[in-house]
Amino acid sequence: MENGMMNIEAPTNVTIKGILGTLMANIDEEKNKRVISLGMGDPTAYSCFTTNTVVQDSVVQTLESQKFNGYSPTVGLLQTRRAISEYLSINLPYKLLEDDVYITAGCTQAIEVAISILARPKANILVPKPGFPIYELCAAFRNVEIRHFDLLPDKGWEVDLEVVDALTDQNTVAIVIINPGNPCGNVYSYQHLKKIAETAKKHKILVVADEVYGHLAFGENPFVPMGVFGSMVPVLTLGSLSKRWLVPGWRLGWLAISDPNGIFKNMKTVDRIKKYFDICGGPATFIQAAVPRILEDTKETFFTKTLCLLKQTSDICFKKIKEIPCFTCPQKPQGAMAVMVKLNVSLLKDISDDIDFCFKLAKEESVILLPGLTVGLKNWVRITFAAEPSSLEEALDRIKSFYQRHSHQQKGQPSQYNSNNTIFL
Amino acid sequence: MENGMMNIEAPTNVTIKGILGTLMANIDEEKNKRVISLGMGDPTAYSCFTTNTVVQDSVVQTLESQKFNGYSPTVGLLQTRRAISEYLSINLPYKLLEDDVYITAGCTQAIEVAISILARPKANILVPKPGFPIYELCAAFRNVEIRHFDLLPDKGWEVDLEVVDALTDQNTVAIVIINPGNPCGNVYSYQHLKKIAETAKKHKILVVADEVYGHLAFGENPFVPMGVFGSMVPVLTLGSLSKRWLVPGWRLGWLAISDPNGIFKNMKTVDRIKKYFDICGGPATFIQAAVPRILEDTKETFFTKTLCLLKQTSDICFKKIKEIPCFTCPQKPQGAMAVMVKLNVSLLKDISDDIDFCFKLAKEESVILLPGLTVGLKNWVRITFAAEPSSLEEALDRIKSFYQRHSHQQKGQPSQYNSNNTIFL
Repeated sequence: MENGMMNIEAPTNVTIKGILGTLMANIDEEKNKRVISLGMGDPTAYSCFTTNTVVQDSVVQTLESQKFNGYSPTVGLLQTRRAISEYLSINLPYKLLEDDVYITAGCTQAIEVAISILARPKANILVPKPGFPIYELCAAFRNVEIRHFDLLPDKGWEVDLEVVDALTDQNTVAIVIINPGNPCGNVYSYQHLKKIAETAKKHKILVVADEVYGHLAFGENPFVPMGVFGSMVPVLTLGSLSKRWLVPGWRLGWLAISDPNGIFKNMKTVDRIKKYFDICGGPATFIQAAVPRILEDTKETFFTKTLCLLKQTSDICFKKIKEIPCFTCPQKPQGAMAVMVKLNVSLLKDISDDIDFCFKLAKEESVILLPGLTVGLKNWVRITFAAEPSSLEEALDRIKSFYQRHSHQQKGQPSQYNSNNTIFL
Repeated sequence: MENGMMNIEAPTNVTIKGILGTLMANIDEEKNKRVISLGMGDPTAYSCFTTNTVVQDSVVQTLESQKFNGYSPTVGLLQTRRAISEYLSINLPYKLLEDDVYITAGCTQAIEVAISILARPKANILVPKPGFPIYELCAAFRNVEIRHFDLLPDKGWEVDLEVVDALTDQNTVAIVIINPGNPCGNVYSYQHLKKIAETAKKHKILVVADEVYGHLAFGENPFVPMGVFGSMVPVLTLGSLSKRWLVPGWRLGWLAISDPNGIFKNMKTVDRIKKYFDICGGPATFIQAAVPRILEDTKETFFTKTLCLLKQTSDICFKKIKEIPCFTCPQKPQGAMAVMVKLNVSLLKDISDDIDFCFKLAKEESVILLPGLTVGLKNWVRITFAAEPSSLEEALDRIKSFYQRHSHQQKGQPSQYNSNNTIFL
């Protein structure tokens, strides 16, 4: 065995980008069909989801000023931390300070930092199922145990708090909440968030509030930041320009500590977090420097336009899903950019599960969906509705055709349901 | 004890940015002296170290194209990986492929990734003393043991290979080489690099070659990339646009695997590295997208100008240091942006060590130097010479005055050296 060359196994976790890459490779180019990806939470491929001019101009301005080619402090530029603290404070009952905000290379790095600073021997973290697999992957690399609590599809994907109670022990350090929800498209009510905060307080654990889709709520419930309950329980809020400003590739995120009573935040913790940032490569200084103007000058109309579009596309998606018999959507999306749909494989003659469904769909229809297994739910699929309306409609029409070809009851055949797969093989 | 709120100690490592921040805070503003920092390897504060127009324009172009606002693959854009593989291959006896290159948020993240993918229970990594403290800090967070080998000041800061032999055991996974050298300003000869490669091969360990200052060689030895010996021993080359293109704040770095014989590189390793990148926030997509044009279109004259300037400032620095009796510089800088200088505290009446020296210097003269302890050598200081020549001269003149005020033999006093500190107190 050679010292440095010894093989270490990679974590076995499936990643969204990993599986989407494999799905893309499975597309049959000879079919000559335009590829429509409803697989990833990145709508920037569609021209209707283009960022605002002021957002882009702000970055050109800081870049061309030549004042921001040097290093920023590893925790982020002071003016950027201050601007984000003020932005977040608008919706909080207390004021965050610039020192409460750390600038990260997108929300992904914010997740990585949160998991890493909470890591300690035997620690476990509670994460939702379905959820976002980067949490599992981070935890695997940092030797943190992951425990899954269920989100309840029939209760608007609310947290099963009884399961949370049962899972928590003396080594539990935090509970992760993703709101507005990815992958489910739900938006939690104030009351439900309060119950989560009370549960966390009872168990003396932190809340990691993944609000990368913050403010992208277009249904009944308004977006309530978890930090509202920061006086009850310390909250690590993770966010980013990515989704609300439609610039996921800019990698400008943040981690904010909402802890006005200083339960988590103390000199030792802050020292550890600061040192951790010394080993992270943060976002480009000139992008950081543009943030104050971006937050100040983005017009409300830009946000409203995005929300209207998301409302429209989520409506199209929800309506079209109803036309596909093997799909069931337990909850109309209220926020974020994707929705979870249950797949009834028993209606399909030659599809074994969600993975098989997505691979065959990619091959035959050049449509990409994310298999539910990737986010923790077998025989579900995640559909991103943040797409050009016409593309979304076409994709769902193609899925309908795909269903018709693969259903037991093929077009023109008697409509009686036949539960025995084998007779059609 | 509260679960999530339990205090974990931060690693005790001193960081460059941490100590420089404290030094800056120690400046006496009432003295009304312009602050001159020779503490950090970031010359962009000086207008003579401004990046090239084409470099900036390339980024404005990709930003304004609106084609690169979305996510890139987590390992980096294909065209960026390809461009960097071709750039690095120019100086190698074999061709790197795009898959051999991973894009990172600056060289800092490349270091973090390298340490993290090499981490395993009981692993140790050999790092130079003096060196770059981010290695120690990363290792502390990833539970990797650090073992220091000496660089020999009287042999051009070459690696003490006998010490390397003595330190290596079955748990040693890699040796870190920083060339051109930070903090010493040395540039290793082909012959010395070959000996390092042979030593690593003998012990079956990897070489981590930190070449963030790659090509910044202006002395006798030309820059030879460690990857030249990749056929002998696998090399992880870490680099960045930061120093050669004078844009450290852009956070565009890379990790390249130079391993044409596939000793380290195999499916398992690559799978692990790829998954690790899924939890990293890399650099902005539009900055990545500008890299091919930046590498293609930057004129040789831009590089030559930077090298001439560094040669000039290193000469000024070396000459002026000789005028300060408490400083000894064992080796004229040949590359990079800083030099190590030995501090003879016995010549100073009221300075206890390098830390004390730097703090009093900051307070009295508004000049920032890095205490050698930060990079592993007590009673040395690191002086960054990548500064405007006039500022550099002024800073060194102020240090000379500082010396004169603090030396046993004060101005106007008899020149006889008095070894007894106390009589002047």
